[in-house]
This record gives sequence, C-alpha cells and structure tokens, in this order.
Amino acid sequence: MNAPTKFEGLDVGYDIPAAIGMDESEIQTPCLILDLDALERNIKKMGDYARAHGMRHRVHGKMHKSVDVAKLQESLGGAVGVCCQKVSEAEVFARGGIKDVLVSNQVRDPAKIDRLARLPKLGARAICCVDDVENVADLSEAAQRHGTEIECLVEIDCGAGRCGVTTTPEVVEIAKAIDAAPGLKFSGIQAYQGAMQHMDSYEDRKAKIDVAVAMVKDAVDTLAEGGLACDIVGGGGTGSYYFESTSGVYNELQCGSYAFMDADYGRILDKDGNRIDQGEWENALFILTSVMSHAKADKAIVDAGLKAQSVDSGLPVIFGRDDVEYVKCSDEHGVVMDPAGKLKANDKLKLVPGHCDPTCNVHDWYVGVRNGKVETLWPVSARGKAY
Amino acid sequence: MNAPTKFEGLDVGYDIPAAIGMDESEIQTPCLILDLDALERNIKKMGDYARAHGMRHRVHGKMHKSVDVAKLQESLGGAVGVCCQKVSEAEVFARGGIKDVLVSNQVRDPAKIDRLARLPKLGARAICCVDDVENVADLSEAAQRHGTEIECLVEIDCGAGRCGVTTTPEVVEIAKAIDAAPGLKFSGIQAYQGAMQHMDSYEDRKAKIDVAVAMVKDAVDTLAEGGLACDIVGGGGTGSYYFESTSGVYNELQCGSYAFMDADYGRILDKDGNRIDQGEWENALFILTSVMSHAKADKAIVDAGLKAQSVDSGLPVIFGRDDVEYVKCSDEHGVVMDPAGKLKANDKLKLVPGHCDPTCNVHDWYVGVRNGKVETLWPVSARGKAY
Repeated sequence: MNAPTKFEGLDVGYDIPAAIGMDESEIQTPCLILDLDALERNIKKMGDYARAHGMRHRVHGKMHKSVDVAKLQESLGGAVGVCCQKVSEAEVFARGGIKDVLVSNQVRDPAKIDRLARLPKLGARAICCVDDVENVADLSEAAQRHGTEIECLVEIDCGAGRCGVTTTPEVVEIAKAIDAAPGLKFSGIQAYQGAMQHMDSYEDRKAKIDVAVAMVKDAVDTLAEGGLACDIVGGGGTGSYYFESTSGVYNELQCGSYAFMDADYGRILDKDGNRIDQGEWENALFILTSVMSHAKADKAIVDAGLKAQSVDSGLPVIFGRDDVEYVKCSDEHGVVMDPAGKLKANDKLKLVPGHCDPTCNVHDWYVGVRNGKVETLWPVSARGKAY
Repeated sequence: MNAPTKFEGLDVGYDIPAAIGMDESEIQTPCLILDLDALERNIKKMGDYARAHGMRHRVHGKMHKSVDVAKLQESLGGAVGVCCQKVSEAEVFARGGIKDVLVSNQVRDPAKIDRLARLPKLGARAICCVDDVENVADLSEAAQRHGTEIECLVEIDCGAGRCGVTTTPEVVEIAKAIDAAPGLKFSGIQAYQGAMQHMDSYEDRKAKIDVAVAMVKDAVDTLAEGGLACDIVGGGGTGSYYFESTSGVYNELQCGSYAFMDADYGRILDKDGNRIDQGEWENALFILTSVMSHAKADKAIVDAGLKAQSVDSGLPVIFGRDDVEYVKCSDEHGVVMDPAGKLKANDKLKLVPGHCDPTCNVHDWYVGVRNGKVETLWPVSARGKAY
C-alpha cells in the first residue's frame, strides 16, 4: 500500500477530493471531475455558434452552479451573463462577479422578492419571470423599497406544461402591468420549451419548437403593436438552440448541458441521426468512482451510489469501456457487471452521469483535470441553493 | 405583501431556511422540516423495542447524516453508537461526539484507510467491514502506523448482492487473518440484507431473512468452534428488525429510516397487512414546498424539484391532502394537479419524500418544528461526505 502523502498536513484535506498538481490517480472518490480540454472546446463551440447566428448566449447556471464555469463561459464563450432558477443561486452568481443575472422562474415568496430586489446592490442586473399579474405589485413594492430596478420577462408556457401563460392576451395584460409599475421594467419574453429537449428525434423536436416559435412571434408582434418592445426574447436549450437561433424571433439562448453533457442528453439525435455526444458535444463531466469490493468473480462494487448522483434520467454509463457495465445504483453502492473479471479493488472508472444538473447539486467540488493532472479545484458555488 | 422581518439584519440569513422561534409559515422553501414530536416518538419506540429484545441499536447515520439526530437517538432511544457508510461521514460523527462508529462498508483506498486509522484519535471506537483478505494487510499497516486499533467485521452478503462474501470458509479465512494482524481486532460479522427491506409482503421479507439468519448462524458457530467469538453480529433495517432481533444470532440492529419514514418505505406491510406508516412509524420528515405558479386552472407549480429531493424510489406524496397530487418532478419544479383549483401562490405543502436518505443528502439544514414554531435548526452535518 502506498501511504498517502499529498493530503498529509492538510487540515482541510478531509473536505476536498484532490489537491492541485496531484496525479489524476490520487483523486479521492466519488467526486466530479471535469476534462478541461473538452469543457473548453464545448464552451468555445457554442460561443462561436451563437456569435455566428447573431444570438446572445445567457448560459444556464442552474446546470453547473459554478461561478468559475460561468466566468469561463463569459471569457471563452462570449456569454452575456447567466440564467438560474432560484434567487439564492442568483445571489451566488452576483457575488461572484456575474453582472447580468436572470432568475428564469417565478419569484413569489415575500422574503425571496425582497432578496431579488436587493440583487442590484450586489452589482448585477436583476431579471425575473412573471406569469401572474398579481405578482407585479409585490415585485414593484420591493424594488421601490430598496430603490432598485427589477426587470421582468413575461413567461410563456410554450409546451413545457410548467410555469407560464398560454395566450397572447395574458402576455399583453401582464406586460402592461409591469410597464406601468414603478421600480419594474418590462424587458421581454421568457419562452423555454423544456419538455422537448430530450426527445430523441430531431424532427419531433423541431415540430414542438415550431409551435413555440409561433406563440412567441404572435406575442412579440402584438406587444410591439401596443408599443412594448422586447429587449429579451429568451429560450433554447442543448436540444433545440439551432431552432430558436434561426427563428427570427428569439434573440437569447439559454443552454446549459452542452458544456458538460450527460448520458440522457447524449442519446438524442442530431439532424443527421447521430447521437449528440458523438460529434456535436463532448463528455466533459464525469463521476470518478473506485472499486471497493470484488467478492464475486463477475461483479465489482463501486463507491458511487445515490449520494453521488441523481438517477432520475437513468443510470450512469461507464466512459470508454464496453467490457463493464453499471447496472444498479443503491444509496452508497454501484453494482458493475464485470463478466471477464477485469477490475480489481481501487481501480477507477469514469461515469457519465444520467443527468448532470441534479448530479452536480450533490457535490461540493469540481476537480478540473488536464493531461492526467489536477489543474483546478472549483467549488460548486451554488450547490444546495434551492430557496 | 408582508415585508420579511425575521431575516433582516441576519447576514447569514440567506444561507438558512428559518430562524428559531419563527412561525412555521415563514420558513423558506424548499427545505426539510422535522416534526419533532413524531421524530421523538419514533426514536423512543425503536429504542424501547431494542431494549425489550436485548438488542443493541447502532442507528444508521447514513440516513440522516446528522450529529444532532444521532445524539437524540442515543439519549432518547438508547442507541449505542452509529453506523455510516463512508470514512468522511465517520469523521463527522466522531468529531461531533459519537464515541462508537462503524463504517458498515469496505475501506480500500490508501488515503481512506489512513483516515480510518486516525479515527480513534478523535475519540471514537473505529470499526469497518472486510470482505477481501488482501484488505487486511493494508488496514493493519495503517493502524500500526498511527498506533491505533481498527476493529473489523467480516461482511457476509446474505442476499443484497453487493459487498460481502457468501460462504463460511471465506468468512473464517478473513476472520483468522484479521485476528492475526497487528493493530486489528476481529469483532464479528456484518450481515445486512439490503435487498429485501422494501419488499411489500411481510412473509416475503421473512423468507429472505430466514436464509440470511441461517448463513450468519453457520458462520458464527463455525468461528466459535475455531475460538473466534463475535462481539458484534450486526444487521437489520426498518423492514426487518423484528426478524433479526428474534433470530437468536444477531445482537445489533442498524435501523435508519424508521426515525424519519418515507413514501417508499411507508408502503411496505406489517404482519397484519397494514402499511408501516399507518401505525408502526410516523412520518417525521417532510420537504416543505411552496406554490410558485398557478397559471393553469387545474395545475399548481411548486418549488421542490430534483434539486430538493431524490426520486429514485418514486415521487413524493403530499401529506394530509387527498385533493391535490404531485405528479411530475423536473429540475426546479414540481407539478401538482389541483383539479378543484384549491391552491394559490405561496400556499405551502408538506411532501413525504420518496426516499429519505438521498433526499436528506441534498439539503444543508433540518428545520425542527413543534406546535407550529421553529424549535431547532440542525445542520445535515455529513451532507455530501461521500468519500
């Protein structure tokens, strides 16, 4: 046994999975690792795409919850800012230096509205979504109380079946209320079609977005006729950004998963029928896991179970190996079938998580790796910020 | 709108979901709340049961990951200590004052073994499981290096299909190696049947445990013939403790979920055919969630999605209401069918999580509530301790 050296003397060592400069083989598992080369290529590629199509890219920070990744998306991918889903996340991004923050969700609770109204005092543009005219007075009162401005987008439910109104008259009614409310600014439309992003077929996804685009275009045109211009018409995800960016209506993309990829997204097909993780985007995020037990000849037990990932969208896939398969996930264990008995205790495997967003949310750190060495250790800055 | 008062002036306020003394209605959502009366009744009931049956109860700390709950289980339920699944969890419990800690799992990585060997320096008895004779030398070397003692249980796979050996000769071989190794002490058997705990039928569960008991009895008897006594014969969960405690072989229970309950466990049936959450145990843990949007007449959108819970064992159930139903969970939203349109923005619901263990692991705090007031705020001390 090699006695550990790199962690010795580090009092904080127990709370970090790796130290910068460490060999990849010494990283403590289970933990999240980022292939920095792949991450940077993904970020640059989407940035180039958005620029070439005249779109702003407001990256979705709820996926990674990391100020460091968001800053890389700004510097390398030309991102204009972030969207996120909770006021507590927005605070983390604003405190971290992101200057343009959209809470792409409803903010209804009095304490949350108060915090949202204080966000500009942290140096950030504060934007939120509204789908109920009753919400407008509360937002306005809070902005006035703090002497700040909250920008509001009217959210259209263009097929996701969650928040948002579904008719142009409702959009206009709420937009007018926002426009008339002191402390608020009407800034446009939020229209993210979240229910189609993971449909396998390109044509099926396109059909859903065609419906969304028609709804949004009708609303934007009607608002314009009434003298209300939309600074932001936002939406688009990793499974649809090429539709929104060529729609002639949307002007901001909100992609998240493209940067990390995951097993569930990777299975959807591009217009040529290829999986999107086989050319369009690279797997940059992995759960590093170790074999703890191999007491049965054909089965290895690894240390990444339900506490290290979310399996809502399926089990993780073992990266770069077709001789072993992750077949079962319990609280603390993963069962890996190893029919040829190739694995032994302490062997490491890289898992592509089924779903990156809720998987990132259970970890405290991203270990950034390049050329087999640990180059960065980034906190999952907004982990657990669910309020 | 009522302006918030309790959080104002609290710089730390953004990172806590509640303040002690606050009315339950002011708690920030989504968050975990504990019904302290129900929790105390569950803990006392299981403690009384174990005492009446001459069993030690080593409560499973991996369920709640909370030093405070573990201490309540000691003081109110007579628990002898905790088990947990990771060395990093064990460190949290030991530092928190728990004096008897079993890592009911394999510890193979050199750095983790080193940390385990240092656990006694934190004031705790350190016990771990072994299912591979090759592991013995590494554990022994680390214990000698630190001048400590690691107690070892041989793990038997009595049906869970994860870690553990499956034959008595393997148990004896590993036990003898432990007994002969400097710095180690052979302390008994770990035999938790994890695969049957959630089987609905009492008789099906009993049939599985009968097999486990026979395996364990054969191993314990054979070890005794060879002069190796088992101080600990441990196992048993919320779905089986009455079998192990009347087996005549086991002497330690390791129950976890009984204290909080969840929707998946709640559905299993006792010997009279009643759900165990309808008399045997009470729901003490809830995800408190708020309505964010009700833009459709029959559907409310709540703020507890995949970032606030794990849905590996099914969707959460809304507590105490049969007029509304949680039907869909996405990253940040829950869809609640509300056919009669009874809910409105900011209404709160109590969700019984599908699976308590991985749900607790995404939260930072337990908000303890009694008589409608916040009485305690307990950290999820070992949240994210997955190494």
